[in-house]
Amino acid sequence: MATKRKLRYGMVGGGQNAFIGAVHRLAANLDGQIELVAGAFSSDAKNSQTTGEQLFLNPSRVYATYEAMAKGEAALPADERIDFVSIVTPNFLHAPVAIEFLKRGFHVVCDKPMTLTVKEAKALREVVRKSGKVFALTHNYTGYPMVKEARELVRTGKLGKILKVVAEYPQGWLLDKIEDSGQKQAAWRADPKKAGASCCVGDIGTHAENLGRYITGLRIEELCAEFTSFIPGRKLEDDANMLIRYHGGAKGVLHCSQISCGEENNLNIRVYGTKGSLAWQQEHPNELKFIAKGEAARILRRGNDYVSDVAKKFTRLPFGHPEAFIEAFANIYLEAVAAIRASIAGQPSLKSSGSAGKKGTFDHPTVDDGVEGMAFIETCVKSAASNGKWTKFPKFQN
Amino acid sequence: MATKRKLRYGMVGGGQNAFIGAVHRLAANLDGQIELVAGAFSSDAKNSQTTGEQLFLNPSRVYATYEAMAKGEAALPADERIDFVSIVTPNFLHAPVAIEFLKRGFHVVCDKPMTLTVKEAKALREVVRKSGKVFALTHNYTGYPMVKEARELVRTGKLGKILKVVAEYPQGWLLDKIEDSGQKQAAWRADPKKAGASCCVGDIGTHAENLGRYITGLRIEELCAEFTSFIPGRKLEDDANMLIRYHGGAKGVLHCSQISCGEENNLNIRVYGTKGSLAWQQEHPNELKFIAKGEAARILRRGNDYVSDVAKKFTRLPFGHPEAFIEAFANIYLEAVAAIRASIAGQPSLKSSGSAGKKGTFDHPTVDDGVEGMAFIETCVKSAASNGKWTKFPKFQN
Amino acid sequence: MATKRKLRYGMVGGGQNAFIGAVHRLAANLDGQIELVAGAFSSDAKNSQTTGEQLFLNPSRVYATYEAMAKGEAALPADERIDFVSIVTPNFLHAPVAIEFLKRGFHVVCDKPMTLTVKEAKALREVVRKSGKVFALTHNYTGYPMVKEARELVRTGKLGKILKVVAEYPQGWLLDKIEDSGQKQAAWRADPKKAGASCCVGDIGTHAENLGRYITGLRIEELCAEFTSFIPGRKLEDDANMLIRYHGGAKGVLHCSQISCGEENNLNIRVYGTKGSLAWQQEHPNELKFIAKGEAARILRRGNDYVSDVAKKFTRLPFGHPEAFIEAFANIYLEAVAAIRASIAGQPSLKSSGSAGKKGTFDHPTVDDGVEGMAFIETCVKSAASNGKWTKFPKFQN
Amino acid sequence: MATKRKLRYGMVGGGQNAFIGAVHRLAANLDGQIELVAGAFSSDAKNSQTTGEQLFLNPSRVYATYEAMAKGEAALPADERIDFVSIVTPNFLHAPVAIEFLKRGFHVVCDKPMTLTVKEAKALREVVRKSGKVFALTHNYTGYPMVKEARELVRTGKLGKILKVVAEYPQGWLLDKIEDSGQKQAAWRADPKKAGASCCVGDIGTHAENLGRYITGLRIEELCAEFTSFIPGRKLEDDANMLIRYHGGAKGVLHCSQISCGEENNLNIRVYGTKGSLAWQQEHPNELKFIAKGEAARILRRGNDYVSDVAKKFTRLPFGHPEAFIEAFANIYLEAVAAIRASIAGQPSLKSSGSAGKKGTFDHPTVDDGVEGMAFIETCVKSAASNGKWTKFPKFQN
Repeated sequence: MATKRKLRYGMVGGGQNAFIGAVHRLAANLDGQIELVAGAFSSDAKNSQTTGEQLFLNPSRVYATYEAMAKGEAALPADERIDFVSIVTPNFLHAPVAIEFLKRGFHVVCDKPMTLTVKEAKALREVVRKSGKVFALTHNYTGYPMVKEARELVRTGKLGKILKVVAEYPQGWLLDKIEDSGQKQAAWRADPKKAGASCCVGDIGTHAENLGRYITGLRIEELCAEFTSFIPGRKLEDDANMLIRYHGGAKGVLHCSQISCGEENNLNIRVYGTKGSLAWQQEHPNELKFIAKGEAARILRRGNDYVSDVAKKFTRLPFGHPEAFIEAFANIYLEAVAAIRASIAGQPSLKSSGSAGKKGTFDHPTVDDGVEGMAFIETCVKSAASNGKWTKFPKFQN
Repeated sequence: MATKRKLRYGMVGGGQNAFIGAVHRLAANLDGQIELVAGAFSSDAKNSQTTGEQLFLNPSRVYATYEAMAKGEAALPADERIDFVSIVTPNFLHAPVAIEFLKRGFHVVCDKPMTLTVKEAKALREVVRKSGKVFALTHNYTGYPMVKEARELVRTGKLGKILKVVAEYPQGWLLDKIEDSGQKQAAWRADPKKAGASCCVGDIGTHAENLGRYITGLRIEELCAEFTSFIPGRKLEDDANMLIRYHGGAKGVLHCSQISCGEENNLNIRVYGTKGSLAWQQEHPNELKFIAKGEAARILRRGNDYVSDVAKKFTRLPFGHPEAFIEAFANIYLEAVAAIRASIAGQPSLKSSGSAGKKGTFDHPTVDDGVEGMAFIETCVKSAASNGKWTKFPKFQN
Repeated sequence: MATKRKLRYGMVGGGQNAFIGAVHRLAANLDGQIELVAGAFSSDAKNSQTTGEQLFLNPSRVYATYEAMAKGEAALPADERIDFVSIVTPNFLHAPVAIEFLKRGFHVVCDKPMTLTVKEAKALREVVRKSGKVFALTHNYTGYPMVKEARELVRTGKLGKILKVVAEYPQGWLLDKIEDSGQKQAAWRADPKKAGASCCVGDIGTHAENLGRYITGLRIEELCAEFTSFIPGRKLEDDANMLIRYHGGAKGVLHCSQISCGEENNLNIRVYGTKGSLAWQQEHPNELKFIAKGEAARILRRGNDYVSDVAKKFTRLPFGHPEAFIEAFANIYLEAVAAIRASIAGQPSLKSSGSAGKKGTFDHPTVDDGVEGMAFIETCVKSAASNGKWTKFPKFQN
Repeated sequence: MATKRKLRYGMVGGGQNAFIGAVHRLAANLDGQIELVAGAFSSDAKNSQTTGEQLFLNPSRVYATYEAMAKGEAALPADERIDFVSIVTPNFLHAPVAIEFLKRGFHVVCDKPMTLTVKEAKALREVVRKSGKVFALTHNYTGYPMVKEARELVRTGKLGKILKVVAEYPQGWLLDKIEDSGQKQAAWRADPKKAGASCCVGDIGTHAENLGRYITGLRIEELCAEFTSFIPGRKLEDDANMLIRYHGGAKGVLHCSQISCGEENNLNIRVYGTKGSLAWQQEHPNELKFIAKGEAARILRRGNDYVSDVAKKFTRLPFGHPEAFIEAFANIYLEAVAAIRASIAGQPSLKSSGSAGKKGTFDHPTVDDGVEGMAFIETCVKSAASNGKWTKFPKFQN
């Protein structure tokens, strides 16, 4: 590791009453590799200021706008200014903020979905490519060690040829129309101007798609989507069910929901192949069920000697000492940090792998995953808008 | 109970190497209400004879053909001949056998799917109606006490308005092409002449549909089906995924599979409403998960005082002494027996309820469920044949 | 199988409001190998008569007392009279009834605990030995296929040398003093005259001991017992905790309870050896967890090809079609029936194995298990009475 | 919060190849409330130095000995020196290090078990009391929100009077004699000079005892302990089983093991009362099972509105986003930090509550818990040494 210091970062978004910004900070704190030194936490300057105080920041590094922050940080001496920015705003700001910081030479960690549209995603990809900077997208669920173990099982042929993928992401928190009563998280997610053309698929369905792609490497050929907005007056869908045809003949079922009473954050996936199957549940993340054909189900558990080196690499605690959401999130940060350190050290040939099974040195989702995710959302929206017609998934030149 | 004796029954099908016939016999034995006295167990007369011997039958009541049996039994004195016949043959024989026995005045218990086509199903329904005899279809999974409890939760409004139903029935036993190597169960199920136009949906998907209908009372308005025959050379589908629109606005996902490696017989259902949700798994049948909105999940367990009278009625053992598949199957028989006893006692006004939520005295699936099940299969086949187009479910005058 | 007919049996005990008698009948019915033809169901003649009617018995075979039944059946022609008797009375009657029938030449199936005292148990053993008749004790939990699989794992060395056994049997049904309010099951179990010197250990602790011995073959060297009668006024213990030293150095923890709120019938056992461990829970009986040292936990499930022939032998349904309590109970009956058929066929050299790991043809608990069980109960009582002093387990010459 | 800055801490122990030191650092990092600025990480100066470098410390604050560190830090200006020290050494160093830092005016966070003997524990308690400084003992499992919820259920009477407690802590990592092959964690734990008179009870049994006391408030009256050293040549016990009598009549079973093959870190507890019961497992920490008498089991899950304010206070993420070991550990740190901030702000009247149910402002284990824990260990050792005789638990004047 070339840079013998903590990396410095700033945050855009994540003020009081925000959710995901606080999660990013916990994840960034965890390993003692990063320190928060700047922020533009809210479009409300008072909120931003208060947040900065609570986080023990130097008031001079708490900015009223992200533009001021980008400019201000760029103007600081190299050994003071931030190394990267974390973008944790509502979706519609992701691209403009990212572009602003990339153009001034900062690396970027960005929440998902990456943009509002595929078009915007591609434009951002262009900026990233030209910048040569690290861009890490926080599809955080791929940070779990046992998800990486699942990917290894597929990669090493333990499942044989993949036949079927069932991915689910049911939640129940939008069963009431809480966006009308000041619940900030709900308000922007249900607003097309801030969230984009989809609520449920954009917020959580895209995680399920990314998780499936990360584990299996399968690409979608076409899909059929059924969107429902169950709560009267809600503008975007709060429930979505998809049938999927993958390139190569595998089939998929992917459904997600925000109105499934009693479901918390039940992302889960099952993958069935000709030689074996696997099952993983986000709410019990330390376990991975694997069944080889004709054999008893095995419950693989994080931290044991028998798991792959890949899973071990992302493990902090011994078996039986459970790790969970924050650690997985922090794994994305750890890899982004490693990539940024490599970039600072002038090792631009080291690449990140992303979720599509490409070979890479750093294992975090990339801007390509962001484009792919937006394409998934748009294809679902398009199919749903045509009464559930089977709709082709666009091809990309990644 | 008017008839102070065990009922007598005969069996068509269920010879050596058959599966479901033996299950029917265990279920029929369990409660000491029925005795097996006759049979035409196989199209192979030797098999039939051997089976009869093993079952301690009087050789004169072991017949070479079902026609001979119907005729022979009808010719016996009333206090000797069978009260009803159990039909446990491959699908293509269900209707002809049932009609043969109904016409000679016997009650019928019949395995599912009821027939090969909707047309045949409707014809059989006509015969049943004219006969005035009891016809019980063994959609056995609705015999589980906790399935009945689930239905009660819906019926009494604990879930509010139903929004979404997710029903799954994955199995893995046809991952190899065992129909080619003499596995009798696989051979007829994969043969369109014996099984009908569907393998996976006909064999197990129809159970998932029936279960959903039994619990929720919802009727399908249209569906979109994706069939796959993953194993080269297999004529019928071994995997099927369906999106469903129910009358009244609820949505459904139903998927079933016979090639999902490691899955045994994992029928399960989740129902989400505006006030609560429930989840039930066939492989852990003594438990029913219920979550009222805003409250902790409750694990309702068979045999406790807090379950409904309906669930209690179908319970033999105290809590903690698990009941399972055979008991559920036997519950279908118990209700059929009660209906047959009522018929014998001249109480024709007592009706069976079937799975569509109709009020009835006896809680077993009926010939109407058979017609509905065939309509489900045919609609799925039709949608799948049109590349997954959304396809209307036919209406019936039940 | 020499006797080409169903065996005939009679029942002593098991009238209305009884529990275990009904269970025995379900188990005896299940496989169509046995028919109930006689009974003395209750010390209340009216109860006995009504029970006989409900079971469709010939009134002439429904007796007012067990003595009358033994005498009456013995007087019937050989091709009419019962082959064996099932004794399902409260504990204090087991020995006298068994002796009465054994002396008249009948085989016996008897509920547990076998007697009131070790002395009485040994006396009964003498009668059994002299009679040459089959005596099967219904320690029913050893009838579960996955318990037999557990025993096979130990027997074939998969666990290495056994180090530790943890057996639990918590229930909660006696948390209220229901023996005072007419609950028949509770009333006799809490009455020293009818149940013997122990309530909790005699009723359920003995099952846990028998299960551990069946699986591991370990014999107790000494133990330390803590009895508590938590409910004021209750004469016998309703909770018992034991530490155990086995011959050969293994250690054990065995605790049982009838006042553990919310526990239903949660018999479970964990066995830890130098090479592996296993865990089994009666309320989820189709699964057996096995962990080989250094490997992932495997969930062995009933009905799969990978389980042992011993487990397969006691399996009726394919994997995923759950079996449960009644089937396990019926497995004890099946083996008793096989032993009785062998005896009828004049094959006295075929022996039953019992639970202590002896080699035998028929796998059911024997009169030796009854003696051992009584010794366990008495040793616990003795230790508890001496304020939990470590107390030697007596040696037997089986 | 009076001190508007991060607290500064130093660490004694926790060099390369250590386990618990790294855990302390992750926990201290998580919430951004504390920064690590100094350390004496190992008795090996090179190890200490390398560790300091990896943690980005100023080399001048990396010390060769804890004495040098205490002296050095005390000599720094008030706005530079550490606020508290974290002691993460093997057991035998806890007391000397703590006393060294307390005497120089530093607050202390210390790993458990607190000392080698009760005598030493009492001496340390005297020093703590005289110092007026905060002393937090990291019985980390009481930091889990659902453990706090369990305590609330008991405290608010939901379980009624407690009758029985079953606490288990099986592990399997010492099944091989890895202390001989350079496994550092095993080496000192199995060495009486470094670990004290007990291995298994001192390392993990004491957690189970503390957890039970924290949840129920029950104090042990007497106990009976069975120690075994299963691995030849091992000097201390690697397996221990205890029966417990609590003051007030409740009974307990507590067993722990380091040779239970396949067990990872399976601390779990069940508490049974007259009105309800609860069950919690450390490996699935986000769930707490609660059964009110006569009602269905409820699965309480962290983060929901229905949990108590106490549990909510220690929750960072919404329901369904699992938290785990590090977060629980961090909760101990958060409360210690709050107590230290109060102390710095001159609010000495604010007290910590400890695990014995005393009322207090800050919810972290105290030096009193350390004394109690040592008394538990010594009483177990004493009983085991007298062949499992029931042995009185000493009384303390806390």
